[in-house]
Order: sequence, then C-alpha cells, then structure tokens
Amino acid sequence: MSIKIGILGYGNLGKGVEKAVKQSPDVELAGVYTRRNPADLKIDSEGVPVQSAKKLENGREDIDVLIICGGSATDLPEMTPKYAELYNVVDSFDTHANIPVHFDNVDKSAKKGGKIGIISVGWDPGMFSLSRLYASAVLPDGKDYTFWGKGVSQGHSDAIRRIEGVKDARQYTIPVESSLKAVREGKNPELSTRDKHLRECFVVAQDGADKAKIENEIKTMPNYFSDYDTTVHFISEQEMKKDHSGLPHGGSVIYSGKTGDNKHVIEYSLKLDSNPEFTGAVLVAYARAVYRLNREGVTGAKTVFDIAPAYLSPKSSEKLRAQLL
Amino acid sequence: MSIKIGILGYGNLGKGVEKAVKQSPDVELAGVYTRRNPADLKIDSEGVPVQSAKKLENGREDIDVLIICGGSATDLPEMTPKYAELYNVVDSFDTHANIPVHFDNVDKSAKKGGKIGIISVGWDPGMFSLSRLYASAVLPDGKDYTFWGKGVSQGHSDAIRRIEGVKDARQYTIPVESSLKAVREGKNPELSTRDKHLRECFVVAQDGADKAKIENEIKTMPNYFSDYDTTVHFISEQEMKKDHSGLPHGGSVIYSGKTGDNKHVIEYSLKLDSNPEFTGAVLVAYARAVYRLNREGVTGAKTVFDIAPAYLSPKSSEKLRAQLL
Repeated sequence: MSIKIGILGYGNLGKGVEKAVKQSPDVELAGVYTRRNPADLKIDSEGVPVQSAKKLENGREDIDVLIICGGSATDLPEMTPKYAELYNVVDSFDTHANIPVHFDNVDKSAKKGGKIGIISVGWDPGMFSLSRLYASAVLPDGKDYTFWGKGVSQGHSDAIRRIEGVKDARQYTIPVESSLKAVREGKNPELSTRDKHLRECFVVAQDGADKAKIENEIKTMPNYFSDYDTTVHFISEQEMKKDHSGLPHGGSVIYSGKTGDNKHVIEYSLKLDSNPEFTGAVLVAYARAVYRLNREGVTGAKTVFDIAPAYLSPKSSEKLRAQLL
Repeated sequence: MSIKIGILGYGNLGKGVEKAVKQSPDVELAGVYTRRNPADLKIDSEGVPVQSAKKLENGREDIDVLIICGGSATDLPEMTPKYAELYNVVDSFDTHANIPVHFDNVDKSAKKGGKIGIISVGWDPGMFSLSRLYASAVLPDGKDYTFWGKGVSQGHSDAIRRIEGVKDARQYTIPVESSLKAVREGKNPELSTRDKHLRECFVVAQDGADKAKIENEIKTMPNYFSDYDTTVHFISEQEMKKDHSGLPHGGSVIYSGKTGDNKHVIEYSLKLDSNPEFTGAVLVAYARAVYRLNREGVTGAKTVFDIAPAYLSPKSSEKLRAQLL
C-alpha cells in the first residue's frame, strides 16, 4: 500500500514534487489542487484528478500527506496552518525571520487535528540546515559558512523584471572563489556580504529602452544588489532562451572547527541541475517520514531537525544498516 | 546538571573523547576505565578517577553514558553487549560485515537492562553513512561513491610494521584525482578498487634490512596492498617523527542522482587534522543523544540512522530553529 500524496499548487515546485513522486516506489500521486481553474491545468500524471483547492477544506480528501507548494511571502503563512489541522502537511517555508511564528501557528493547528506539519523542508532551509546542525553538534568550537551558487535566484530575477524597460531577466548568484578557498582552508575569515557572493545578471531590454538606466537601477537596488559586486549583460531574447532556460542552483555549507589545536573542515555541497526538482525530491522524502511518524501517534509541528534519518528512506532499518552504514 | 561520561579504553580514541568532553559545556568526564593497571595511566583530566575496567561490572558506577573505545576485531563484539545491559553505551564498531550480528547482540542486552546501546558511531561508519542515507532517500535514482583520504590508515601502517626488517611505518590512503573528478561531474563511472585509491607508504627499515624485499612484501600483500597502486619510500627515523607523526584523515561521500533528465551531485567531505579526535567528538555528541533518549524511555540498540539530529546538540529546539534552520 503506497503513501497517497496531494500537491497544492502546480508551479515549478509542484511539478518537481510530481516528478519525485514518480521516482519513489512507495508513494503515489492522489491529487493536484489548485487555486486556478482546474480545467486550465494540464498535469503530467495520467488519471490523477486536478481539483479546486477548495475541495481540501472539508478534510475528507483521500490523501495521506499534502505537500503545499506555495510562496513563503503570503501563501504558506496562511495555508500551512489552515491545512495542518486537516491533513499531514509539508512545506518549504523559507522566510527565516518568521520561522518561529510559522512554527507555532502550524504546531497549534496540527496538534488540534492530530496531524503533523513539517515546515521549512528543502535544501536551504533543509539539507543545508542539517549540515550546520550536525557539524556544530560534533565540533562546538567552530564556525559555519554558507555559500550559494552558482545558480539562478528566482527572487533576484523577478526583481530585475519589475524594472521599466526590462522584458526578461535571469540572475546568477556566484560565490567568490577566494573566499571559498580561505574558508575551505580553515582560516575562519570575517566576510562581508560583498566578500561572499557576486551577482551576474542577463537582461533582455525592450526595444528602445535606456540600457544605462536599467543597469544603474539594478546595481543600486537596495537589499537585492547594492551590497554586491554586480555585473549586467544585455542579451537577445534568443540568447536568453538558448543559454538561460534552466534553473540550476547549489552551494556549500562549510564548517571549520577545532579539537584542541587540531583543525577540521566539514563541507556539504550541492550541484543541482534543477532547483525545483531537487527541492521537490526533498519534500517527498519528508512526506514519507511524516506519514510514518503520524501513524506512530506523533503530532504537531516539526522541522528536519526532529526527524530521525531512517524515516526518510523506503528501505527497512535492517537493509539500511546492511547497505549504507 | 551535566551528563556524566565514562571512557573505557584510553588509547588514541579514548584520548580524543576526553578532549571532546572538555569542549562540551553540558557533559563531564566521570571516570576512565582500563584493562591495564590503573596506576600506570596518566590522563589529562585533573581529579577524574582512573579505575580498573572490572569496577564497571557491578553496574553501579555513577555514569550516564559509557563510551567504549576498543577495537572492532575482538574488543567491541564482547564489550558492547556486556556493558549495554548495565549502562547506556556508545561504540565505534566498524567491521561492516558483522554489524547485523553486533546490532542484535547489543539490542538484546540493552533491552534487558533498559538501556540504549548505539553502535558504529564515528565518521565512517557514522557521518558518511548519514550522507549516503540522506542522499539516497532524496534521490532514489542514483549511486553513491565513498573516497577516503588523504589520510593515515592505522590498519595498513600496522600491517607494514609486522614485516620483518621494518622498524616503523606510516601508510597514506589517497583518492585517485581523475576518479574523484569523474564522479563529481556526475559521470557515474564504474571504478575498480585500483581506480579509486592509491597507497603511499613511508618505511623506516632496520639497519641492514633488505629494502627490496620489504618493498616487494608490501606491494604483494593480499587485501591490504596487492589490489592497489602502491608506492614505498624508505626514510629515516627522524624524518618519520618530523613529517609523519600526525593522524590526519578525511574523505568524501559523493552521490550522483537524477530527477528525470536533470542531474544532481551531492558531496559531503571531511578534512581532519586528527582522526581520533574527530571520531571522539562524534562519539560525545551521540552520547548526549543516547542520554536524552533513554530518559524519554527509549531502549535497545540504535545507529546514527535512528537518532533525530536535534538530540545531538546542547541547544534547545527553539534556538536550533532560530540559529541554524
């Protein structure tokens, strides 16, 4: 009997979850739920119903875990607590400062409904967070560094697209090689925002747009670009399509710690061809864990820190010990 | 109130545990136990009693967790099940083929005594095993590669020391760069034993020893060297002391997987100045987890796969979410 997954929200992430479900022998897609008109949605799983998100509200949909693929700004703070009372849920909430509030809200409603809501699942927060925790627990005398990229930041790309005269844009976050090197050598440098990452932008301008003005607006944009060394390239629509249509990402968590006089460097790194597909795969592994833990009677809000690794794998504990330990 | 740790066995690993205890605010060293004459042992912790291992047998020593620092060949298969009935225990058992039997033996006696016995803790098995599990759970369609080194293999160094005419020896295990590169690029190569690692040996010969014979004996030694490209350097005793007195080690677990047509490469790597000190630090983090879980009523044998990461850290769940998620 396989675990029945529901997907709420069918954007890039929802599609990534759908792909991951297909690769997992013990889970199946039971339904896709959308706030758009269900008739307008073409999904990639034959025979799976596409329904209005409203259908979820009676709590009677036949799904074991609902994976909520919404945005952290406005969708998830409302959706995850709402559905955690009715279903086991997984989300990828990544607005760091608001995690405590979100956790409490999900905890209350999940406990009320006897369900589990696991929040902030993905690679950062998610797999990167795990690396920071394991490393700092083992070596309390140390320091962690997180570098992102090379990869496409969708938030930064969107910010450029909102500038007047911009038709399309893609922004790559790139770690500064010399800083990476110093951290890997265990030098524990103090690094400013500018020291850690570069921002490289590819922009398709509208006909007749003032490119110098666009470039200046990008480079001086507060929060997004002004604290970084930023380069801007204007390219054609065809070049954008040919060279920049993927959503690769990745990065490294590097922890440099000591035992007495001896130094130790721990690095966890990801090179991902598709950010949303990898994130979707992490969400499905945690959906498996949530399903199992809830059957054992566990309820409430959780994060990746609370889940014993064995719950993530479809393999038995005996097999895991024999094959992976 | 801090967690009281006992150390059984005061070799390199026991000393590493002692150092890790000093760096952890919430644990303290309550006693060192030895099969040697306790009077002959000078430890590095003032005021901590050194006692005969026999003292442990009545089960009345005032320790919360006993960390057993013995060898996997003959010590741990006997010691861990024996003491798991009397105390919560942690070991670093690493004879892979015998893990299922060892697990069962520890499970029986730990359950009988209402204790927890966690086995095979360290970096491989241990942190490397976790990387293999997390990666394969997230990307079921993939393959893992483990490379060790560059680092000192104590087992291989000992094997050389047993050859006639050898006064001292140090063996470095070195990953083959071209293979590492192919794996990191996601090429999923088929690699033989020889393709993955080189073995470099530094040997101090006794006066008048037949060096050609020693070199030949090393290079043709079954299991240890014959399946590898091995180089042998004869050096002086002073050079050995000056250049090869440390016990550095490390390595990488690289997992290369797919979602549909997209490739993803996950790498976890360690560069350790001191293998026994890092291993000791991992043992102490898991001792903390074992103590907490046993207080919650959990008993029986466990591995790193069974422990939720939050149990390893001295920080509260609230702090972990705020600082590391």
